[in-house]
Amino acid sequence: MKKGIAASKGYSIGKVLLKKDKKIKIEEVKIDNVEKEKVRFKEALKNSEEQLQKIKEKAEREIGADKAAVFESHIMLLGDPEFAGAVENEIENNKINAEKALSDVVKIYMATFAAMEDEYLRERGADIKDVGHRILANLTGNISDLSNMENNTVIVAHDLTPSDTAQLDKNKVIAFLTDIGGRTSHSAIMSRTLEIPAVVGMKDITSSVKNGDTIIVDGVEGTAIINPDENTIREYEKKKEEYEKEREELKKLINVETVTKDGKRVLVAGNIGKPEDVKQVLANGGDAIGLFRTEFLYMDRDDMPGEDEQFEAYKYVLEKMEDKPVVIRTLDIGGDKKLSYLPLPEEMNPFLGYRAIRLCLDRPDIFKVQIRALLRASVYGNLKIMFPMISSLEEILQAKDVIKECRKELKKEGKKYKDDIEIGIMVEIPAAAVNSEELAKYVDFFSIGTNDLIQYTLAADRMNEKVSYLYNPLHPAVLKLIKLTIESAHKEGKWCGMCGEMAGDERAISILVEYGLDEFSMSASSMLKAKQLIMEK
Amino acid sequence: MKKGIAASKGYSIGKVLLKKDKKIKIEEVKIDNVEKEKVRFKEALKNSEEQLQKIKEKAEREIGADKAAVFESHIMLLGDPEFAGAVENEIENNKINAEKALSDVVKIYMATFAAMEDEYLRERGADIKDVGHRILANLTGNISDLSNMENNTVIVAHDLTPSDTAQLDKNKVIAFLTDIGGRTSHSAIMSRTLEIPAVVGMKDITSSVKNGDTIIVDGVEGTAIINPDENTIREYEKKKEEYEKEREELKKLINVETVTKDGKRVLVAGNIGKPEDVKQVLANGGDAIGLFRTEFLYMDRDDMPGEDEQFEAYKYVLEKMEDKPVVIRTLDIGGDKKLSYLPLPEEMNPFLGYRAIRLCLDRPDIFKVQIRALLRASVYGNLKIMFPMISSLEEILQAKDVIKECRKELKKEGKKYKDDIEIGIMVEIPAAAVNSEELAKYVDFFSIGTNDLIQYTLAADRMNEKVSYLYNPLHPAVLKLIKLTIESAHKEGKWCGMCGEMAGDERAISILVEYGLDEFSMSASSMLKAKQLIMEK
Repeated sequence: MKKGIAASKGYSIGKVLLKKDKKIKIEEVKIDNVEKEKVRFKEALKNSEEQLQKIKEKAEREIGADKAAVFESHIMLLGDPEFAGAVENEIENNKINAEKALSDVVKIYMATFAAMEDEYLRERGADIKDVGHRILANLTGNISDLSNMENNTVIVAHDLTPSDTAQLDKNKVIAFLTDIGGRTSHSAIMSRTLEIPAVVGMKDITSSVKNGDTIIVDGVEGTAIINPDENTIREYEKKKEEYEKEREELKKLINVETVTKDGKRVLVAGNIGKPEDVKQVLANGGDAIGLFRTEFLYMDRDDMPGEDEQFEAYKYVLEKMEDKPVVIRTLDIGGDKKLSYLPLPEEMNPFLGYRAIRLCLDRPDIFKVQIRALLRASVYGNLKIMFPMISSLEEILQAKDVIKECRKELKKEGKKYKDDIEIGIMVEIPAAAVNSEELAKYVDFFSIGTNDLIQYTLAADRMNEKVSYLYNPLHPAVLKLIKLTIESAHKEGKWCGMCGEMAGDERAISILVEYGLDEFSMSASSMLKAKQLIMEK
Repeated sequence: MKKGIAASKGYSIGKVLLKKDKKIKIEEVKIDNVEKEKVRFKEALKNSEEQLQKIKEKAEREIGADKAAVFESHIMLLGDPEFAGAVENEIENNKINAEKALSDVVKIYMATFAAMEDEYLRERGADIKDVGHRILANLTGNISDLSNMENNTVIVAHDLTPSDTAQLDKNKVIAFLTDIGGRTSHSAIMSRTLEIPAVVGMKDITSSVKNGDTIIVDGVEGTAIINPDENTIREYEKKKEEYEKEREELKKLINVETVTKDGKRVLVAGNIGKPEDVKQVLANGGDAIGLFRTEFLYMDRDDMPGEDEQFEAYKYVLEKMEDKPVVIRTLDIGGDKKLSYLPLPEEMNPFLGYRAIRLCLDRPDIFKVQIRALLRASVYGNLKIMFPMISSLEEILQAKDVIKECRKELKKEGKKYKDDIEIGIMVEIPAAAVNSEELAKYVDFFSIGTNDLIQYTLAADRMNEKVSYLYNPLHPAVLKLIKLTIESAHKEGKWCGMCGEMAGDERAISILVEYGLDEFSMSASSMLKAKQLIMEK
């Protein structure tokens, strides 16, 4: 049994798929049984081909036949008798292991391509390298193809990046286990979005399991049991069943209005990253979208999304939500979130650096595209625009000026937009919370971003394992700032929400109800439990 | 005229000494006049020898004859006719510039030494390289020997590190100019400590001047004038005179008690880094040491300072200050302050990381050495111990436990210490300010560290040029936190000081007096002006 940090509740029993990023080290080993080695190589070829076939089919379905063509050429290389023959000859002549033989042949092929005059052929070297790596990974049991998985797969990885999780087949993944990360790391947030159990910060889970191991993931206790015996499996199947029964109970709350014991109506809202996430929020009875993290529209691509593309994304969410409130946060890029096509300066302390509203006010060429798309989408629902990383009044005024300017442009162009959109800010920098009484006069709402607010208030990077023990949502200073922010909003007749992880934290909810929080926004998977707790208070 | 950020007031007129760290690029140039080139080389040899002679003498005086011997061997190489002859032959035979000829000969020498069997001789290769670099620097006018300077030297550098400034001959340097940095960069702080004018953040000053240029430094306006005409020199000589007259006026305040218009006695104290800095604090009429940054005892060396060595340093300061208060801050290492002998993990956001009290509580082996030294020194004066980077009560209680434990040990060993030392904390993390009412119950004093408090409150790294515009000591949120901290201290009958740059900031002083700040601690050079302003309020 391995322990870690419980990041997403629930129980799963499945098979390990190990995502290893480490470079495979190739050593030459002298072998006696040439035939056995050739068989190993052929099997690796066969597995590689099967995997590539599936990837190709998925790619054709999801991204189009033209882009999937590259996989066809990979498959052809696998079937090329000259290539396979060269590797087999190496094994036979030198009496060496398949890994080394393969690696030598791949090197020769790559050198040959590299020397070619035709640019297209020269670039084929990269394909050879890719395919060679896949065969090698199959030979050494290091295959980590996230797009090709069995049912009931438990992903085990050092960490999962946003682009890793984008590749996953969401129907087949039933849990995550990672070496690093905390409750607010990307893998943790993603697991809650997918409503699958996850344990993070397990330190050495990737070196403790191998592909195909049976594994139990306990997302309540934060543990994993590797190759459990029959009794243990039965025990956890029972736990799983009870847990799911409770989830079913919670589902009865889906259409119930959330009212506290004191008779106050509050909103339970969802945080989303991609437009389609809205479905899950609705499926869990969400009253609103409390945070649409628009940076996900900008990530994992090669260029900036244009105005029309953004417009479509926002319109989709607004229409799906009908007239329920949708708070869309403007671009929060920089810090730990980078874009390949937008080079930013290297910073010593990116969390205290050039990001979010700072970058947007400095780059109207980027900011205005988004504001125009938002304004145009506003006619399709109940849009509220929110600015991230506000530290002072000047930034609010400047950002509002950009909105004014975009309205003027759209008017001139004869394009439609709503005039009465609510405009609010994230309260995630201590200065904004401390000064909230003043800022409340200039905005329509606040949304407290606890993930950042906590780390700045305590000067502790939540991703840094040496100081993450300091990251405490219930620290008295954090609670005071939250209380002050809510009171400041109410004093000016504005509403105050919260869209950090804390809004779904069971330990925090009764305090937040007491403080008078108006909107709780969280992962879709936490919403029903939160609703239950809010109504109990 | 070049503009930058005024970092330390005053006027200086002197000669440029350029500290260039850039690699000198050597290009082959065909020459016609062989004799002229030989003369250039001989002059560079002569200058190099003179410099090395002075360095040798300084080293003999300061670090002992045995360690200075290496410079003797450098001087011998300069006088070696075989070496000089080889370079002259290269010039003559190939009709090339002295730089290239020298570089070729040095390479051959180094290769010859590198091939030798005897280890001692092999290592002589490094000497050849050093000497070759010095001659080359003299040839190209790139000499940047900080230990060998004329009177009235203006140091012009990309930036100055703590170890650079340690080497300086403080009697001869009259100003600093740097390409990068802001008002709180090391060069800026050091210039105020030395009471010499400085302009930082000048962007390209190093490429705008050459060694020996006459230069005017205007530390009031933040400008520098390169090779000024006679009229300008006269004008600035007059400004300098007036400025110095005003300084003389201020000196009359040295022995005057600082009392505000309301009749409140406040302390004007000095920030120090090295024990000997205490002299300047006393020379400027300091009432106390408000901040002894003990990390300077740990820097620029190869090992941790031991208990006895630290004890001597603290005792020296306490005795010099007689019975005036001396606030010694425990080790604040980590973040941007690293020690060569204490490897720390690489961090994505070092300012939000493992540093100061976090590191000390985690490493009692380091922390206890300092606490024992402090306790032993306490009998020699009016010591107050201060902990940096406190974010919560737990840390205060833990740090106090370490003091208790050290007292027990010392008692057992029969060593003397005072029992009634005041123990306080830096309030530099927003959480400490927000929660100051609670924390005030557990400490004897607060000292507000504005440099960090501002950057955490606004989530803006003050060293990052892209966001340094946000770093504003007069931001309403910053002022609110300062006011709250002072009130919290007073409510519990404790005193509150300030030891950030803001305590000496003319724009802030009247506000701080109004808030009731009890102690203003700053660079020695700002103290008298601050005293004047405080008394006017």
